[in-house]
Amino acid sequence: MTATPHLLVDPVRLEANLARTHAALAGLAVRPHAKTHKSLEVARRQLAAGAVGLSVATVSEAEVFARVCDDLFVAYPVFFDAERTARVRALAGRVRLTVGISGTDALPDVPGLRVLVEVDPGMGRSGAPAADAGRIAAAAQAAGLVVDGVFAFPGHSYSPDGRARAAADEARELARAVESLAAQGITARVVSGGSTPSVEFADRGVLTEYRPGVYVFGDAQQVELGTVTFDDVALSVVATVVARFEGRVVADAGSKVLGADRPAYASGFGRLPDHPGARITALSEHHATITGFDAPVGTRVRIVPNHVCSAVNLADELQVVGAQPWRVDARGCNV
Amino acid sequence: MTATPHLLVDPVRLEANLARTHAALAGLAVRPHAKTHKSLEVARRQLAAGAVGLSVATVSEAEVFARVCDDLFVAYPVFFDAERTARVRALAGRVRLTVGISGTDALPDVPGLRVLVEVDPGMGRSGAPAADAGRIAAAAQAAGLVVDGVFAFPGHSYSPDGRARAAADEARELARAVESLAAQGITARVVSGGSTPSVEFADRGVLTEYRPGVYVFGDAQQVELGTVTFDDVALSVVATVVARFEGRVVADAGSKVLGADRPAYASGFGRLPDHPGARITALSEHHATITGFDAPVGTRVRIVPNHVCSAVNLADELQVVGAQPWRVDARGCNV
Repeated sequence: MTATPHLLVDPVRLEANLARTHAALAGLAVRPHAKTHKSLEVARRQLAAGAVGLSVATVSEAEVFARVCDDLFVAYPVFFDAERTARVRALAGRVRLTVGISGTDALPDVPGLRVLVEVDPGMGRSGAPAADAGRIAAAAQAAGLVVDGVFAFPGHSYSPDGRARAAADEARELARAVESLAAQGITARVVSGGSTPSVEFADRGVLTEYRPGVYVFGDAQQVELGTVTFDDVALSVVATVVARFEGRVVADAGSKVLGADRPAYASGFGRLPDHPGARITALSEHHATITGFDAPVGTRVRIVPNHVCSAVNLADELQVVGAQPWRVDARGCNV
Repeated sequence: MTATPHLLVDPVRLEANLARTHAALAGLAVRPHAKTHKSLEVARRQLAAGAVGLSVATVSEAEVFARVCDDLFVAYPVFFDAERTARVRALAGRVRLTVGISGTDALPDVPGLRVLVEVDPGMGRSGAPAADAGRIAAAAQAAGLVVDGVFAFPGHSYSPDGRARAAADEARELARAVESLAAQGITARVVSGGSTPSVEFADRGVLTEYRPGVYVFGDAQQVELGTVTFDDVALSVVATVVARFEGRVVADAGSKVLGADRPAYASGFGRLPDHPGARITALSEHHATITGFDAPVGTRVRIVPNHVCSAVNLADELQVVGAQPWRVDARGCNV
């Protein structure tokens, strides 16, 4: 038995998640976000299940996934210092590479590089106002870049009653951005959006491409948002009850395994799918304090992390039911 | 210039933190918690500055730090399955090893192993009620273990007005635990406690040993708790402004670099020590959204993470001012 704590993947559920979500997105190009799994093994399965390519968050993630995928989109407003410019030039010579831009302050000096203009879909994080997209696109063209279109990430879909609204906000803002490009004589061939919570609300009248990430595994956030059920979740942390006190037990999976993510709507710091009434009321680096559940010291429990992207990035490998472990090839690839 | 984001250590401040805190704990054995830095380079400096040994959180951390330290305490109620029992036996044959126990349900089958009984100092996480400590110690002795004393972690010191109270709670409960052992004829030679926020309140009438962790680097939590100032903080994340919008900028250090820890008393998801009015109002995996601060795209900024233990555990190495990088040797050592 593998020592606890460790991450365990159910590959049957994973394949079911790919099939179900890719089918739900029929008619759109599906470009999954590899930041969730950071694993070449998972990337291969996404491509086999019909993904047109992969999204990544950093240039170093792109360098890793270029081993298995020749069509990569860095869905991030990369800052192009000399070091990163050299790396992007090298990578663009080997694969079909697209990067995000969200302004005109520091356009890349990589002639012919494909770019998408990032648009704020009403989340207020990154992305230009839709009305600015045409101006940014024109400046990018003038700088020798190839403008393929626009993209957004509707992160405000991570709200129990916000999924449909975030998808609608995103579609509206991306449509405005497409018009803004058209006013500059630039055609947006790619209109890329999406998040896992908003899959069922994907607007095919506006989007051409969708970038789901978490869908591959699912997590407690998705369950509590209503996107999936625990029966769909393909990754859990296997932990051991190490101490038992009046009214609580302690398991050996803390924030250095589960991640510390705890959105306001969450019921705790993760969930025990086999014990729906249990709550993780506190999380330290190596302790999950669990109430509403009792078991002897030594009992193994499954814990579904709140945010699977964080949990995976803390691990070097994923145990796999019925197979050899998968490496987290891009763990820590932040640059 | 090293690409951003990366972690940068100021070794002069680090040495000053060691000297100041070890001096503040004069009269107590100082056994720093290595989970904070996970680095052999830092451990060597702590030992050179007078630490009697190291605390660690897991057996795998102990295996790493056994390379530079022959006196290790696993300050955690380790569960002894067959695999971990074999590892602890091997390690106890090489170094002076002590482990925590917090009950009698699964005592280790490692004859002669030194143990400390974990006591709840009023935090309500792990640790037995003080009145049970004697019973647990007697059972441990009967099982062939060597009971050296008791320990606690006053984690409720992580509260702006809770530092002195947590130290007092801890001293009271540890004193009760010592009496509980005495009633069984067992002398507590070691009474180990402490946390960084409660250093200045260490009770020398009760404690014999202190286990500070975060003190080596400091972090935004410690500044906001009032333990240290930004001028004491020896580790920061170097990030780049990658996008600039009306009322906010985005830097390229997200939760996969800073960690997602955000206690209720924190002013945000980390702090910019050079810009005291700036606030990190939102954190995604690769985005820090910063308000109260404006700078052009490409500007480098220093960000002090809320919880340095989490940030270090996300990195493979630490850049060091004026020296070669230090490896995070025990990164991910959770088992």
